[in-house]
Amino acid sequence: MTTQKKAGVLGATGSVGQRFILLLSEHPDFKLEVLGASARSAGKRYEDAVTWKQTFLLPESAKDIEISECTVEAFKDCDVVFSGLDHDYAGPIEKAFKEAGLAVVSNAKNYRREPDVPLIVPITNTDHLSVIEEKINKAKTAGQEKPGFIACISNCSTAGLVAPLKPLVDDFGPLDLITTTTLQAISGAGYSPGVPGIDIIDNIVPFIGSEEEKIEWETKKILGTVNASKDGFNLISEEDLKVSAQCTRVPVSDGHTECISFRFKNRPAPSVEQVKESLRNYVCEASKLGCHSAPKNAIHVLEQENRPQPRLDRDRDNGFGVSVGRVREDTVLDFKMVVLSHNTIIGAAGAGILIAEILLKKGLI
Amino acid sequence: MTTQKKAGVLGATGSVGQRFILLLSEHPDFKLEVLGASARSAGKRYEDAVTWKQTFLLPESAKDIEISECTVEAFKDCDVVFSGLDHDYAGPIEKAFKEAGLAVVSNAKNYRREPDVPLIVPITNTDHLSVIEEKINKAKTAGQEKPGFIACISNCSTAGLVAPLKPLVDDFGPLDLITTTTLQAISGAGYSPGVPGIDIIDNIVPFIGSEEEKIEWETKKILGTVNASKDGFNLISEEDLKVSAQCTRVPVSDGHTECISFRFKNRPAPSVEQVKESLRNYVCEASKLGCHSAPKNAIHVLEQENRPQPRLDRDRDNGFGVSVGRVREDTVLDFKMVVLSHNTIIGAAGAGILIAEILLKKGLI
Amino acid sequence: MTTQKKAGVLGATGSVGQRFILLLSEHPDFKLEVLGASARSAGKRYEDAVTWKQTFLLPESAKDIEISECTVEAFKDCDVVFSGLDHDYAGPIEKAFKEAGLAVVSNAKNYRREPDVPLIVPITNTDHLSVIEEKINKAKTAGQEKPGFIACISNCSTAGLVAPLKPLVDDFGPLDLITTTTLQAISGAGYSPGVPGIDIIDNIVPFIGSEEEKIEWETKKILGTVNASKDGFNLISEEDLKVSAQCTRVPVSDGHTECISFRFKNRPAPSVEQVKESLRNYVCEASKLGCHSAPKNAIHVLEQENRPQPRLDRDRDNGFGVSVGRVREDTVLDFKMVVLSHNTIIGAAGAGILIAEILLKKGLI
Amino acid sequence: MTTQKKAGVLGATGSVGQRFILLLSEHPDFKLEVLGASARSAGKRYEDAVTWKQTFLLPESAKDIEISECTVEAFKDCDVVFSGLDHDYAGPIEKAFKEAGLAVVSNAKNYRREPDVPLIVPITNTDHLSVIEEKINKAKTAGQEKPGFIACISNCSTAGLVAPLKPLVDDFGPLDLITTTTLQAISGAGYSPGVPGIDIIDNIVPFIGSEEEKIEWETKKILGTVNASKDGFNLISEEDLKVSAQCTRVPVSDGHTECISFRFKNRPAPSVEQVKESLRNYVCEASKLGCHSAPKNAIHVLEQENRPQPRLDRDRDNGFGVSVGRVREDTVLDFKMVVLSHNTIIGAAGAGILIAEILLKKGLI
Repeated sequence: MTTQKKAGVLGATGSVGQRFILLLSEHPDFKLEVLGASARSAGKRYEDAVTWKQTFLLPESAKDIEISECTVEAFKDCDVVFSGLDHDYAGPIEKAFKEAGLAVVSNAKNYRREPDVPLIVPITNTDHLSVIEEKINKAKTAGQEKPGFIACISNCSTAGLVAPLKPLVDDFGPLDLITTTTLQAISGAGYSPGVPGIDIIDNIVPFIGSEEEKIEWETKKILGTVNASKDGFNLISEEDLKVSAQCTRVPVSDGHTECISFRFKNRPAPSVEQVKESLRNYVCEASKLGCHSAPKNAIHVLEQENRPQPRLDRDRDNGFGVSVGRVREDTVLDFKMVVLSHNTIIGAAGAGILIAEILLKKGLI
Repeated sequence: MTTQKKAGVLGATGSVGQRFILLLSEHPDFKLEVLGASARSAGKRYEDAVTWKQTFLLPESAKDIEISECTVEAFKDCDVVFSGLDHDYAGPIEKAFKEAGLAVVSNAKNYRREPDVPLIVPITNTDHLSVIEEKINKAKTAGQEKPGFIACISNCSTAGLVAPLKPLVDDFGPLDLITTTTLQAISGAGYSPGVPGIDIIDNIVPFIGSEEEKIEWETKKILGTVNASKDGFNLISEEDLKVSAQCTRVPVSDGHTECISFRFKNRPAPSVEQVKESLRNYVCEASKLGCHSAPKNAIHVLEQENRPQPRLDRDRDNGFGVSVGRVREDTVLDFKMVVLSHNTIIGAAGAGILIAEILLKKGLI
Repeated sequence: MTTQKKAGVLGATGSVGQRFILLLSEHPDFKLEVLGASARSAGKRYEDAVTWKQTFLLPESAKDIEISECTVEAFKDCDVVFSGLDHDYAGPIEKAFKEAGLAVVSNAKNYRREPDVPLIVPITNTDHLSVIEEKINKAKTAGQEKPGFIACISNCSTAGLVAPLKPLVDDFGPLDLITTTTLQAISGAGYSPGVPGIDIIDNIVPFIGSEEEKIEWETKKILGTVNASKDGFNLISEEDLKVSAQCTRVPVSDGHTECISFRFKNRPAPSVEQVKESLRNYVCEASKLGCHSAPKNAIHVLEQENRPQPRLDRDRDNGFGVSVGRVREDTVLDFKMVVLSHNTIIGAAGAGILIAEILLKKGLI
Repeated sequence: MTTQKKAGVLGATGSVGQRFILLLSEHPDFKLEVLGASARSAGKRYEDAVTWKQTFLLPESAKDIEISECTVEAFKDCDVVFSGLDHDYAGPIEKAFKEAGLAVVSNAKNYRREPDVPLIVPITNTDHLSVIEEKINKAKTAGQEKPGFIACISNCSTAGLVAPLKPLVDDFGPLDLITTTTLQAISGAGYSPGVPGIDIIDNIVPFIGSEEEKIEWETKKILGTVNASKDGFNLISEEDLKVSAQCTRVPVSDGHTECISFRFKNRPAPSVEQVKESLRNYVCEASKLGCHSAPKNAIHVLEQENRPQPRLDRDRDNGFGVSVGRVREDTVLDFKMVVLSHNTIIGAAGAGILIAEILLKKGLI
């Protein structure tokens, strides 16, 4: 407990920020110390500034924290800063924080495509953090100050897609075709305005702005590799892997369902049983490292024919575990299956916390 | 009006039967005369026997009809019989009706795969009715009585899939790969028990029994052709066309949304604009024949990026028109798009009525 | 048809304005000529300016109308102006229109409490329009120009409450206690922002700003009488009638359900059967006048124990009829019952249209 | 741990039974030993017999238990038996268990109205358990075996109503008028059939069979007193207290919302602030006894104007705490307010567990 790291939250009054705060309260590794929000909120007690909209109560420990503006000065003593900033604001703030030597774990999309910024699903591609490790080691060797960095959380629906595919790539080699049709919960759209109620009662909205492009691009980075010099990433080329996403919004509060299909490059493809076996046996690095929030099972393979279902399965391993069901052969590609992931936990704020736990275990914060 | 045909409804108290009755009340071509249900209901006034669950009121004209048992004797004077029977009961009853010379339009799945039974989406493959025409003509030539027949309504989610694909096949040649992920409304599951409320509030059920198999098989019959001797159908072979469906149940009352993708056999594939043009220009035979329920537009091509949506678009052309949106290129197959169809109208009872209207216009009833 | 009156709509791009436009397209009495919206929209074609969100398509006849600013000049030739303006804007605009001699039927709340402005539920208290009639007659007698006026549409949940109570007051004398707990649909909250989806999936919000006060006050005006000099209204005093409302928002798209109870001043109270008989026999003035949109039955008395239900009953008489069920004795007051009314038809835009039809039949526009 | 009591569950495969099992797994006081179900399930492993429908996984400890028939013989070693039996079966079974000397805590309605059976809301009227205590003491004094008994869990919506009223009665004297309009979740209706999905999407059902009668009757027993001889209860008479309920089913998974109003017999009535103070200060006996599941706060008084809400507030104190909001004066009675209670926890299975914990602390099992 004496070694708790100091944590800050950018965008503290927003919905991602609120979830960071919930997950940080009573966290063994981190102590919430600084909350940053807009100039309008700065100076107020957190409880007075926030419109709290979570199913858990506002933690006592956060109520009285005085909100700061999102300046380096205010966060300079933080060991790690979680950013729940809207992408309209995240760009210059996160850049300034990084340049000031701070460790930033961000849910914003602004730097996901930067060549040296790891884009992390914490149950999936934590080897990508070696790019940060290398940067820190180089600085150390050169006798320089520990450099700041940004580690990005992936898009929520990307997380659900790659989580079960990565173990399969590890065991059976690369994929060359992936399709996903997503049925996404509304909590991911935030609150003001988010998804209007009249759009989502007795209805489906078959479009989410930029979502399909995010999935299609991010998958190629996350399933890609760290390059040899460890200063960036080899994205999988469009030639080697085609990803096609169709995204819809559905009347579900939490939990993204995805109907996915995929094809392996190598022939013969594994059997259905081999695929399930691979998923069942998968243990993520966060679990091996003993991280506090790491799921007992990163991937749950369900055998009932009508699962996973968001209401019943989204809270597996407190939302850090992903559920897979209906693994079966596909006549068009090799396999099809249904994946369920908790969009605000493993797909957003929770992922940020687990990334930070891994960074801590690896000695990077 | 003097020429109204006499109509009967089998399974009159069930949800499909109720919709047949609604659509037949005040119909210019048909007069509802006989209602068949189980022995338990037989002898009662319809109003007393039915638990009416429609948004329109029980038509006055149906209230006092005395329910019959589902026997040939009771329906022998009907020019056309609409069957909303559950498949557990439909088999022997529909067979007996056909053998007795009656014209049966059935929503049950029992005879859909029979080699000489047309499986019809009435805005799509009405040319398949020539098999019935041929049979009647042969009997006439042979001086025999007009033979009975069964014409089957397709599965609801099959209808939404093939409706926009058939015009494309007509214009650009065969498809060799089709995928669909369906987001299906609950009204199609009927009422007792149907989909339990607790399964569908804030939830998705990613499984519908036998639905994927139905779509995958029926598509090959509907997109297939009448054989040369006109006594049956050439199904498209698995080699020539692969269809892959993933079916989910969503919290929507009426209207199936499908995210589909497909590939043409011929290269080069048409452009997005050509695809949309083809769909916009499509006029179904029912419209050409001037059928009462035929949609003004069988296919509506929507240009707004977030349409079609079930609550807003399901009632186009009284549910007989299908809406298509988000037509765009697909990296894995050629195109992807979103289709919306009203599952209880063009996907079930409404289809039956329109099939009968077409049969009438063709002189087959 | 040659006598169609010229109609304008204020707030034409908003959700109430859109419904006015829908109801005016193909209306036999009115011809839509002028559409008013904010300066930002003015000058655009209506189709280009509006985000159309109705289940019926944007009428062809409205698409090309060029939007005007909400000035008297633009609307000066209108025989009637329907106002769907937000109350933030309605005040000065509606006042100016009235002073310029225009006939305004408004959905805004701004002038509902004015002593000389009738607050009308068009199936309920159309006798209140005599205040306008008197004003016009006086001007005529004095040789003055026909004066402008405002007629206000009641709050949506007030409409559902008073509609079945007024016939009872007519038949059995005054009420002294009324309670209502409302379960209100989200369509009434409009669109930007309206009710956020995340607030209403798997949830109830037991509060609607100012709604309870509106119901409690408006009921006393609507159930009150025109004063002797016919220049205003006698509100029922708090001493004579106490109204208590509890308002909630529920996951329903259209249709307000209200669980109401009430007590008559006179003893003995009527029987349940007498109450139902009174409701069944009620014929509203709009029906007697033969108004185009008048419901066949203003009040539908349902006998099934689990009705009315919004999805099944909201569209009775195209939304102009109110449904009442579960009429039974109450141990605390005299009676309790469940009322269902379509909040955007009889509770908003539809009411405005029907009010205008009545004004027309009475020769007031 | 060495003193864990042996627990059995009747109706173990049903939805109430499943929740008993969840709450008993890892319970410090009770060890689940016997599961009873129908003859059809008897002999099977629990995991094989049950269709598990909970958001938490089936506890490992229950999976392998062999299901017994619901006979005294099978349960004879149990210190306490929780009954989740349907009322169609509960009558003779629970009676036999009681007569055999077993302690039964039942969710069925069969014996709630028995003069000597306590009807308990465990955060409300635990003093009523003295009737059981007296019976046991008498037997002890007479040198007889410890007698069996039944303690009944109240109806779910009764629990939400009386929980906040009891502290007020304690502080300010009796009530003479109570009204409640309930907005009830669907989980309480169970699963086969429960509430059909098509009835509850975009809909309200304003009727729940027998529910209003249960609330109106049970309130008078629960707010009543133990009689002087401690062998039964003084129900409040209809003359002294009138209760009127209107019950509706709403599209909410868990959590009953009730809009209640009430009047005190004594004048002057307390102030709003006094009412809130009384509710805030209330500490239930279960908390004083230190029961494992006792809520930290039996009553949460919320000050935000739009709370409580089911999705946000139902899980307070793991569902054992009741939330109250919008306490305000009522023009018809004295006060009105909104109450939220978790229908399957404090309104059903959870109540049973907490009752048993209290019985244990009192030395009655």
